[in-house]
Amino acid sequence: MLTKTMDPAKALKLVGTSPVRPDGVPKVTGQAVYGADTILPGMIWGKILRSPHAHARIKSIDTSKAAALAGVKAIVTGADLPDHKFEYVGPERVAVNYWHMTRNILAREKVLYEGHAIAAVAATTPAIAQQALDLIHVDYEILPHVIDVDAAMQPGAPLLFEDMITRGVEPAPATPSNIAKRLEFSVGDLAKGFAEADEVVEMSFTTAAVHQGYIEPHSCVARYGADGQCELWSASQGHFVVRAYTAKLLGMDIGSLLVHPAEIGGGFGGKTVVYVEPVAVALSKKSGLPVKIMMSREDVLKATGPTSGASMTVKIGVTKAGKIVAADSTFKFQAGAFPGSPVMNGAMCAYACYDIPNSRAVGYDVVSNRPKSAAYRAPGSPISAFGVESVLDILAKKIGMDPLELRYKNAVSAGSPTAWGPKHAHDGFKETIEALMQHPSYKIPLGKNQGRGVASGFWFNGGGESAATLHVNEDGSVVVATGSMDVGGSRASMALMAAETLGIPYDKVRSTVADTASIGYNHVTGGSRVTYATGIAVVQACNTVIEDMRGRAALTWDVSIDDVIWEDGHAKLVDGRAGDHAPLSLAAIAAKRAVTGGPIVAEAAVNAGGMAPGFSTQFYDVEVDPETGHTRILRVVAAQDVGRAIHHDYCEGQIQGGVVQGIGWALNEEYVYDKDGHLSNAGFLDYRIPVASDLPHIDVVMVEVPNPNHPFGAKGVGEVNIVPPMAAIANAIEQATGKRMTSLPMSPPKVLAAIDG
Amino acid sequence: MLTKTMDPAKALKLVGTSPVRPDGVPKVTGQAVYGADTILPGMIWGKILRSPHAHARIKSIDTSKAAALAGVKAIVTGADLPDHKFEYVGPERVAVNYWHMTRNILAREKVLYEGHAIAAVAATTPAIAQQALDLIHVDYEILPHVIDVDAAMQPGAPLLFEDMITRGVEPAPATPSNIAKRLEFSVGDLAKGFAEADEVVEMSFTTAAVHQGYIEPHSCVARYGADGQCELWSASQGHFVVRAYTAKLLGMDIGSLLVHPAEIGGGFGGKTVVYVEPVAVALSKKSGLPVKIMMSREDVLKATGPTSGASMTVKIGVTKAGKIVAADSTFKFQAGAFPGSPVMNGAMCAYACYDIPNSRAVGYDVVSNRPKSAAYRAPGSPISAFGVESVLDILAKKIGMDPLELRYKNAVSAGSPTAWGPKHAHDGFKETIEALMQHPSYKIPLGKNQGRGVASGFWFNGGGESAATLHVNEDGSVVVATGSMDVGGSRASMALMAAETLGIPYDKVRSTVADTASIGYNHVTGGSRVTYATGIAVVQACNTVIEDMRGRAALTWDVSIDDVIWEDGHAKLVDGRAGDHAPLSLAAIAAKRAVTGGPIVAEAAVNAGGMAPGFSTQFYDVEVDPETGHTRILRVVAAQDVGRAIHHDYCEGQIQGGVVQGIGWALNEEYVYDKDGHLSNAGFLDYRIPVASDLPHIDVVMVEVPNPNHPFGAKGVGEVNIVPPMAAIANAIEQATGKRMTSLPMSPPKVLAAIDG
Repeated sequence: MLTKTMDPAKALKLVGTSPVRPDGVPKVTGQAVYGADTILPGMIWGKILRSPHAHARIKSIDTSKAAALAGVKAIVTGADLPDHKFEYVGPERVAVNYWHMTRNILAREKVLYEGHAIAAVAATTPAIAQQALDLIHVDYEILPHVIDVDAAMQPGAPLLFEDMITRGVEPAPATPSNIAKRLEFSVGDLAKGFAEADEVVEMSFTTAAVHQGYIEPHSCVARYGADGQCELWSASQGHFVVRAYTAKLLGMDIGSLLVHPAEIGGGFGGKTVVYVEPVAVALSKKSGLPVKIMMSREDVLKATGPTSGASMTVKIGVTKAGKIVAADSTFKFQAGAFPGSPVMNGAMCAYACYDIPNSRAVGYDVVSNRPKSAAYRAPGSPISAFGVESVLDILAKKIGMDPLELRYKNAVSAGSPTAWGPKHAHDGFKETIEALMQHPSYKIPLGKNQGRGVASGFWFNGGGESAATLHVNEDGSVVVATGSMDVGGSRASMALMAAETLGIPYDKVRSTVADTASIGYNHVTGGSRVTYATGIAVVQACNTVIEDMRGRAALTWDVSIDDVIWEDGHAKLVDGRAGDHAPLSLAAIAAKRAVTGGPIVAEAAVNAGGMAPGFSTQFYDVEVDPETGHTRILRVVAAQDVGRAIHHDYCEGQIQGGVVQGIGWALNEEYVYDKDGHLSNAGFLDYRIPVASDLPHIDVVMVEVPNPNHPFGAKGVGEVNIVPPMAAIANAIEQATGKRMTSLPMSPPKVLAAIDG
Repeated sequence: MLTKTMDPAKALKLVGTSPVRPDGVPKVTGQAVYGADTILPGMIWGKILRSPHAHARIKSIDTSKAAALAGVKAIVTGADLPDHKFEYVGPERVAVNYWHMTRNILAREKVLYEGHAIAAVAATTPAIAQQALDLIHVDYEILPHVIDVDAAMQPGAPLLFEDMITRGVEPAPATPSNIAKRLEFSVGDLAKGFAEADEVVEMSFTTAAVHQGYIEPHSCVARYGADGQCELWSASQGHFVVRAYTAKLLGMDIGSLLVHPAEIGGGFGGKTVVYVEPVAVALSKKSGLPVKIMMSREDVLKATGPTSGASMTVKIGVTKAGKIVAADSTFKFQAGAFPGSPVMNGAMCAYACYDIPNSRAVGYDVVSNRPKSAAYRAPGSPISAFGVESVLDILAKKIGMDPLELRYKNAVSAGSPTAWGPKHAHDGFKETIEALMQHPSYKIPLGKNQGRGVASGFWFNGGGESAATLHVNEDGSVVVATGSMDVGGSRASMALMAAETLGIPYDKVRSTVADTASIGYNHVTGGSRVTYATGIAVVQACNTVIEDMRGRAALTWDVSIDDVIWEDGHAKLVDGRAGDHAPLSLAAIAAKRAVTGGPIVAEAAVNAGGMAPGFSTQFYDVEVDPETGHTRILRVVAAQDVGRAIHHDYCEGQIQGGVVQGIGWALNEEYVYDKDGHLSNAGFLDYRIPVASDLPHIDVVMVEVPNPNHPFGAKGVGEVNIVPPMAAIANAIEQATGKRMTSLPMSPPKVLAAIDG
């Protein structure tokens, strides 16, 4: 690691405060420019034809009538994109199967889900583009479909890929199936472990596919030049990854594609992949004109990645003293139409909060006729936690132990083993449990039909590749730029870290996101890596500039650079020699920069390891209406180790946001399919995400156990908060009703059925 | 200097070739995005009210009726901009008088020329904005005006600034005048020098104000956020200077203004200042909406900077042997309505080609009721050259010497003195004369009414502040970005220098111009500084990346970095140890960058001194129609020392472009004022720039005397080519007609009058 750890004895002036967010005013005044807001001269409109069938062979596509329509400038189908070699893991750092990806962008041999893109038209108006779509004739051979993960795993199920052999099984199975992969993490001796247990519970659970529910549908504008150079405006969680995917899918040099970041109206993992971008580029290339494509909400729900629904069985054994001695689980995740669910993460996170000597987690990645799943906040972990944290609750009751105490007794800390090899390197989990144990609300007595439920969660958090630049302007104002899309406040946190490091006021720092031609590679804003990894790059750039400014002060004073220190935004002489020369402020040095070497600049790049995991423990008080089965959330207290809050309110907001999304996942959200494999609720009227009136104030307790690998101690805060809610609410409902809910969402009809059953 | 000089023994593979220009295809296909092409959601339209009077006091401005018009969203006048302290030289590096500049942007106490901006309106449509302008009532007290520079210097002339005392005169004059400044450069003993002369010629000359004639009028779009953060899209020769000026004029932090570069449709010096940008920002701030302002051609001609017209007297003495022994000249330059003509450069360049032991050049900077002058290609030098090079021609004839030989005998080379102090550091001038002496066309016999004229020119060229970044993508393609607007091919030259330095193909390099938040300060693209200074920054960034890649190869091979060399785009082991490890290409290192340290990035910044001056010698063959006075250019050969041509065709094009603009200046272009001080020819029908049918092929001879301070030897090529044409054509016309033209333009009526006179 290339970082310097902040001297803990040195008080921080800005880090941890909550100044005005750089994106706040533009967003509330409507000035923020989102993906759909780019307008180019001569721009035309792209629309995408989507499959009406859940599963069908494409016998032919006839675009001739559409092409003849006045105003139509280009039509593309899968045949217009280069094909790719079938490979499970693609090139360096982009562990993606482009054979799959290009087929998800535009179907080739088959359509694999309702809404699967088949062809695209660009025309002078959206209406003409729509009319042209209606003129495209696709000759389908309709095939039987399968939606449910358990059904998809059955012998004889309709096969999406007729030659797919399950990976991770030795010897390889003789017959193809919908199971793309089997994986397993094992520790110790299960039989011995369960033999030691005083209580063993084994239960099965299901979770529904739920969408990230970002407000802004996917959209982009592409301009492909006659010289092969292309520009793309796109709202995503990572314009460098949009560039990499799009260039690869179109067979372009990465350098020939320049992607501009747009403001993003939510992503939560779902905007780490591409859907419309390669199509827009292909249409622009063919038409010679700039092309805009905007998805509808229906498109978003039918054809972009929700997270996996899953089916699982969890078996855990504990001693009377509260020691978890064994755990054995099987997780079957819906990948959607192409392999790649987060089942590995789900299996790894399943027991990661606890030191369990004997454990096994088996995972299956299973395709079915649904949209390809995509990342969603701590991908996979909330799913396995629903099962594991529900079973722990039952076990706590069985041995008569407070559920927080059971978790505390088994909680990992630095040095605890993991199921996947290396030991945990960080504390932080126990501290979240302690925070709840000590929280006054945890003692508030509950009334009739009310219940309190506890759960915990784990997430790895991310590091990885980031770059940042720092430029000191001639008036002493500063611009910090990164290539990390600001999804959850990174412009504010980068500005805070830069201002703190340089010793200048926050309002002298402008924080921006640069395009792919102007800054080094930044991996996606996701996995809660940006404040950590990009933050390290920013602080490194600041330190380079401080070194530069010390050198310029030394030049000005004709002393050695070793005689110059940087303190409180000023270059000063060491050893009480301040009398010789008055300190030089950053602004004073900047004003003279021309005669001391020219522009003051720095670019830093890192591939940051050393990130610290996130732990969260939460409790929920609920009241269940026995007449309707409706669950009201009365109270939430969410404790999370944030390492160090850089922007205090943003951290709190991240935690509140994760909790709210978890409440939606727990109580209402689900993909509902009819018998034809058609999504019945592809709109926000029927796909019900929480609204303000559904929610109490979310009480956040931020635990700060600093990460020694980050200059200010930051850990990722955006993910783990969504892990506990589903199990915690199920646990609370059980206390309120005496009924154990094992299937998400715990919607009123299901809860009512359980009460009545 | 931080550069490494290219090993001259090493053959260059790319530098000096002419690959396809990055801006070529977008420009010819109409895809290039110019200043007027930016469109933002909710954008409204700004228009500017301009003075109908050449000189008037503003008694009051009533905007109430305009403000009441439906659709009008904001109105600004000078009172909306903060005022500035009167100072002749402003802050560091921006040697500008903001008291003047803010009054040129929007008049305050007085209007000083026809077209002077007074107020601006932003409305929902251009038509409403125009209607609103018509509703603004300005109460003027009309004042007497003065247009001509000699008239403006007369006692009793109408005064633009009633308290302006001439600077540079000791003791200071007792009374105000229109003379802003007097300056003088003297060497040796004039009386002694002229006493040594065998022939002395003294003559007076005038030149007309001529416009840079860029095709694209000024335009911009500004979006000022409610949070005080502003973005500006602007076509200029320097978006960092647009940022500095606009921020200063509006009292903003520089960091709060982000300027995006647009493609530029010509600048030639005239887009190094701001006109509409501060107005658009002020309107956007007041309206809360994005505002676009586009100038009309009439606005451009009436209210943006032409270069100065001038009046001058030149006296030079030579011996019979052809030694120039003395020169004494006075140059009176029109500054326009505010001080700041290029008279100092004109006076410095006047004799800079020649080693003259006794000389004096006196300059006057004079205001009159014309638009403020702005830079135009080698500002000032073409004006003084018209006089000096005309007189040298007469003297050559008087002593019976070939005009090239006279110049050669007196030509400066490295070590020759200058009038302003330091000795010339570079050769290159004599080589341009030799090139013409040896050119076969110089011996082509001429016919009736035909003449051949020679002249030379000097320009300093620029260095200064530049920054560049280099980013190596994961597929081995590379992006080189600078903050230097590409006016004349810098994207191509930067890509060539980067590809050459890195040892990779040209088409693997994408070359872009980054916005002001994404890269370090780059001074304007002007003075022919970019290929030199920004080129040094690019090569430095390449060298940083090469060092980085050597380190990564060393890490991969587990050897010392000292054992790794970089050659032909590959890291190789030294000492014939290549057998140990196959060379690693840039692409191979890039593909593994994640495990060798993360993104491969570099930013370099310089304040480049050491630039080498430009010298040009040209001859023109003309034929004058004795019936009409029309001069046809039969043949041009332009020799210029380019140091080293980076992109061969672009260099040639630069030289051809300067020659063509010089031909226009010589023969047709002029600002024509009527008695009321109104510009009579504010359009391209009446202001006549050369068109293709006016021109022969311009034959270019590129002399390459490398500049040791640039890694490839480059010198600025964009300026000096415009210096010789006016005098050379006058000299040719004299040979063709026997008449000495002393007043520009040498338009048909004037030439006919001379012939008939």
